[in-house]
Amino acid sequence: MSTHRKRLNDVINTGFGANSSVEGSRLTNKDGSTNLRKTGLPFWERISVYHTLLRMKSTRFLFFILLLYTSVNILFAIVYYFIGVQNLVGMDGIHAPMHEFMEAFFFSSQTLTTVGYGHIAPSGMATNIAASIESLVGILIFALVTGLIYGRFARPRAYIIFSPNILVSPFKDTRALMFRIATYKNNHLTDVEAVVTVALHLKENGKTATRFYPLHLEYAKVNSLALSWTLVHPLDENSPMYNFTPKDFEDSKIELIVAIKAFDDHFSNIVQQRTSYTYNELIYGARFLPMFHRAASGTHTILELDKVNLHEDVVLPEIRTDLAESESFRANA
Amino acid sequence: MSTHRKRLNDVINTGFGANSSVEGSRLTNKDGSTNLRKTGLPFWERISVYHTLLRMKSTRFLFFILLLYTSVNILFAIVYYFIGVQNLVGMDGIHAPMHEFMEAFFFSSQTLTTVGYGHIAPSGMATNIAASIESLVGILIFALVTGLIYGRFARPRAYIIFSPNILVSPFKDTRALMFRIATYKNNHLTDVEAVVTVALHLKENGKTATRFYPLHLEYAKVNSLALSWTLVHPLDENSPMYNFTPKDFEDSKIELIVAIKAFDDHFSNIVQQRTSYTYNELIYGARFLPMFHRAASGTHTILELDKVNLHEDVVLPEIRTDLAESESFRANA
Amino acid sequence: MSTHRKRLNDVINTGFGANSSVEGSRLTNKDGSTNLRKTGLPFWERISVYHTLLRMKSTRFLFFILLLYTSVNILFAIVYYFIGVQNLVGMDGIHAPMHEFMEAFFFSSQTLTTVGYGHIAPSGMATNIAASIESLVGILIFALVTGLIYGRFARPRAYIIFSPNILVSPFKDTRALMFRIATYKNNHLTDVEAVVTVALHLKENGKTATRFYPLHLEYAKVNSLALSWTLVHPLDENSPMYNFTPKDFEDSKIELIVAIKAFDDHFSNIVQQRTSYTYNELIYGARFLPMFHRAASGTHTILELDKVNLHEDVVLPEIRTDLAESESFRANA
Amino acid sequence: MSTHRKRLNDVINTGFGANSSVEGSRLTNKDGSTNLRKTGLPFWERISVYHTLLRMKSTRFLFFILLLYTSVNILFAIVYYFIGVQNLVGMDGIHAPMHEFMEAFFFSSQTLTTVGYGHIAPSGMATNIAASIESLVGILIFALVTGLIYGRFARPRAYIIFSPNILVSPFKDTRALMFRIATYKNNHLTDVEAVVTVALHLKENGKTATRFYPLHLEYAKVNSLALSWTLVHPLDENSPMYNFTPKDFEDSKIELIVAIKAFDDHFSNIVQQRTSYTYNELIYGARFLPMFHRAASGTHTILELDKVNLHEDVVLPEIRTDLAESESFRANA
Repeated sequence: MSTHRKRLNDVINTGFGANSSVEGSRLTNKDGSTNLRKTGLPFWERISVYHTLLRMKSTRFLFFILLLYTSVNILFAIVYYFIGVQNLVGMDGIHAPMHEFMEAFFFSSQTLTTVGYGHIAPSGMATNIAASIESLVGILIFALVTGLIYGRFARPRAYIIFSPNILVSPFKDTRALMFRIATYKNNHLTDVEAVVTVALHLKENGKTATRFYPLHLEYAKVNSLALSWTLVHPLDENSPMYNFTPKDFEDSKIELIVAIKAFDDHFSNIVQQRTSYTYNELIYGARFLPMFHRAASGTHTILELDKVNLHEDVVLPEIRTDLAESESFRANA
Repeated sequence: MSTHRKRLNDVINTGFGANSSVEGSRLTNKDGSTNLRKTGLPFWERISVYHTLLRMKSTRFLFFILLLYTSVNILFAIVYYFIGVQNLVGMDGIHAPMHEFMEAFFFSSQTLTTVGYGHIAPSGMATNIAASIESLVGILIFALVTGLIYGRFARPRAYIIFSPNILVSPFKDTRALMFRIATYKNNHLTDVEAVVTVALHLKENGKTATRFYPLHLEYAKVNSLALSWTLVHPLDENSPMYNFTPKDFEDSKIELIVAIKAFDDHFSNIVQQRTSYTYNELIYGARFLPMFHRAASGTHTILELDKVNLHEDVVLPEIRTDLAESESFRANA
Repeated sequence: MSTHRKRLNDVINTGFGANSSVEGSRLTNKDGSTNLRKTGLPFWERISVYHTLLRMKSTRFLFFILLLYTSVNILFAIVYYFIGVQNLVGMDGIHAPMHEFMEAFFFSSQTLTTVGYGHIAPSGMATNIAASIESLVGILIFALVTGLIYGRFARPRAYIIFSPNILVSPFKDTRALMFRIATYKNNHLTDVEAVVTVALHLKENGKTATRFYPLHLEYAKVNSLALSWTLVHPLDENSPMYNFTPKDFEDSKIELIVAIKAFDDHFSNIVQQRTSYTYNELIYGARFLPMFHRAASGTHTILELDKVNLHEDVVLPEIRTDLAESESFRANA
Repeated sequence: MSTHRKRLNDVINTGFGANSSVEGSRLTNKDGSTNLRKTGLPFWERISVYHTLLRMKSTRFLFFILLLYTSVNILFAIVYYFIGVQNLVGMDGIHAPMHEFMEAFFFSSQTLTTVGYGHIAPSGMATNIAASIESLVGILIFALVTGLIYGRFARPRAYIIFSPNILVSPFKDTRALMFRIATYKNNHLTDVEAVVTVALHLKENGKTATRFYPLHLEYAKVNSLALSWTLVHPLDENSPMYNFTPKDFEDSKIELIVAIKAFDDHFSNIVQQRTSYTYNELIYGARFLPMFHRAASGTHTILELDKVNLHEDVVLPEIRTDLAESESFRANA
């Protein structure tokens, strides 16, 4: 390891093991979730059903509800069918089994949703009990669905877009890692904090070890995120990636783990969003271009969300290779 | 720029760009929202439907529900009409198309709300399936409406009124900017914090730039907001508006961005409210008059909310124009 | 004012005005609410309907729902009655107006609750439209009620009982003000913080002024409130009530404003409870007796909530009247 | 008491009394609840019905709903039966009392769930009023159930598993107490904090007293809990259990009270979980083995939850019995 980096304390409280050899390729997925599987407990104990239903895509959620509705309907239709459709008063005299089953199915759906037209009505003990249970089941299911729909809407989210790329840009008289964020909904974040950790996969004594370093930012907190915020990590003496060449970035397979935490006005709640950047998403020698401008009318500002990654190529200031530390790093890496 | 203000650090972490030229006229609207439009993403991705429905006025929300209810009813009425009203058992023998459509509409509403009287009932596969789907749609819609109504009521709000004006008042042996707040509902705020930032539009080298300065307050935090709270920013040497004349305020088009954050007992939650003051709302030489008094019965205190802006004209202490700093500012401005 | 108290800074950030003369008798009610009325805005703008419904007693809330249900039923019954009960198909041929009205009322309730038996069913445009609207109204009302019932249950509360009395007890080699709290439900508070402020009504230059002082506590924070917690304010040199005699307490009409804030496991939320003590609730020369003991079985601890105020009389250590400060206070008071 | 421990301050702000003699056997149960009963208030005032229903097992909760549904149904069935089933229009002419009661019961359930087929319908004032009330009761009950189901799902929980055992392991050049935690659901905790307090039951002057000491941890906070976290309390000079032999642990009947607090992404809320360890759960001379490894495919990490307690026996470094402090402790204990 470089003498330079020895000065910097790596951290072990990242939630990941310090020993790289036991870990998979990417630590944190692009969506901020951990690249991890859990075993040793039955599936239903390892999963939070509620939160899975809360986080799934709307189309899948709708499909889930349709499936649930149809399944329960079919289940009770089978019950009514086997008790005997003659107990469903009001049915016309047709006796084709498929037709009878469909009538049982429709009676079931009228009971489950408590619409209960009554042109078909239960008679006899067994059918009445089944219908009584089904209407209770219906109410419980829709209590659940009400809770899920509310939960899906009310789930606090930060609605942040991250620039797909992370840039190595000129910064003051040196260079800096930069990425850019903005909120893409009509929400407003205040007291926005960023925590960025880098994972470096380093060869030490012939073995590869993963070291985690917290990255200092030019500003780690802003009062308000109205327009965009470019997060800047200066690649100076205090950076574990000081004087890194493109090859250094690649060799050490850097991964930036990013967590943004803020207070959101909409939800009156803390919201959090995470992501990560790997070497493949790093552009060496580029800088972001503005993504907002004054409206032609002069009455307001326009923030162009499709420009979050807009950048141009630039020449970086020379790396001062006269530094022993850097030399020593490349010698070791 | 004045030598005085050079000492003060302006801030860039306000969420607004430091470069004024790219921004619109007012940074923050009177209701605390940012004067900003977002582009570059489709409308439905830029908007949080849930929060838009949560924040709209009650009358508009009621109208939205009525519209939704009627639209879905009409949609399914069209379906029943085209399947054929002969499948709606129980309808009398009239065949005027408009009458038939109305019957289909009423059957639809009885299905959507799950009231299901049953004097009109579905028969045949197609009508039964449509009715089965409509009753599910009804339950989903009203699950949504239940969530929205709860969300609207439960949305944490600070219920703060701000004095419409900001005053330049005498304060100790100098002057101060003052505005006043109170809660107007039967709520109680504790741990109330205020953050006030000023935006000054300054001419520097012939160009106009916007500089942001945090404003120090006499008290930036109170334990409890039971009566009223007058927020005081002393216009002393540490203020970026030290010795400002009315013309200075106007020329630099000051905008005060105000954020109040507190813990609310009702919601057991953090609440936040923002607003802004521009030069047009500044009164030079006035002071607030009390807005509360002891009840005639002596048993309690009365807080008069209509007096939140009550003030009287006063003569301000002389600006000490012997200060080089101030001179230099006016020379530059 | 005593020379002693001059050293202590009184505070103005209590949410109450520093000037006593404009205030009512008691600043904070026993239930922690502020003894305050607001005027200057219409009633409905000054009140948070939702929170009023959330905080009212269960019996009153139930009565409110019954009243709402009956009122809406009667309203729509009147509508159906005036459209004409002949449009309510299925009614038997009786024509006594009262009977007809009752039938309209029951049809109304069947529509409002969406039970819709259908033995009475709407016919004709006007009645159908009214029924269609009423079933929507029903769904909206019960969406509201669902939200209210959930809100009432889910409203975070601290469930703290305070000892009705505040004691002046012996403490170390001096005396202390003490009161005692415990949680009375099966809830568990952690990170419990207390903030106690005293309001002293002092005669200064012939006028009565109210001064507020924060009171230091032996422990102002406990990690966990499992059993009981006796809050102790030592009446030492740093107390604004140093060497107070019973007459001093009475003359200065002390009022202790108490706020307890904690994290509650049940709600996973911050909860807060406030109360106040006045001179009438002070007992001079008493100490609390234990309110918990080991169960006879030895397997657990028993906390006796009815003993929260259990105390015995004790003789207090002499007030050292040789102190100039105290002398000077009584001379002034 | 040992001279060593005299240096360490014990704490009284643990929520438990400092005087052991009034307390039961275990202070905190394994599930983190306090081993405590409250008396002196009626049962219904001591219990939070809502939270009891929120925290009970799913099967018991389902049983509670079934019981409630059946009870209310039977109650109203009795009412209809005594008013007279001739007022339930549509019933066939059978008059066996049991059959009549069952019909009343089914009518009741159709009213309570608002399914209201209408093949049986109320007639007469009394039956209509009863039905009108029952349908309101039905709506209120299911509003309650909707709230409870939502509340049960949305209740923030940490989903942490603790290693069943606490180990005395080698650590650096001394020994340490260690236990291990992980999250067992697809949730992600950030800003995870641990507070560990030990209760020592010590003989002092012939009496047993309970002393509480906060335990310092190698890391008391981690940024993120992605894999597992081994909590380490070094048994060094600053530990109240410095140089404890197995017999010392047993004699002082140690109990570790553990509280973990974190921010959870799923709930966007603070979550908390508590537990305790007693001497019976302590293993003297063992160390944890890794519970995660790289997947064979190399693409992710696998966390094996069934290995949370996996450990192997190890020989501990010698206790340096030459220390006067330790000697003195064992002499006293």
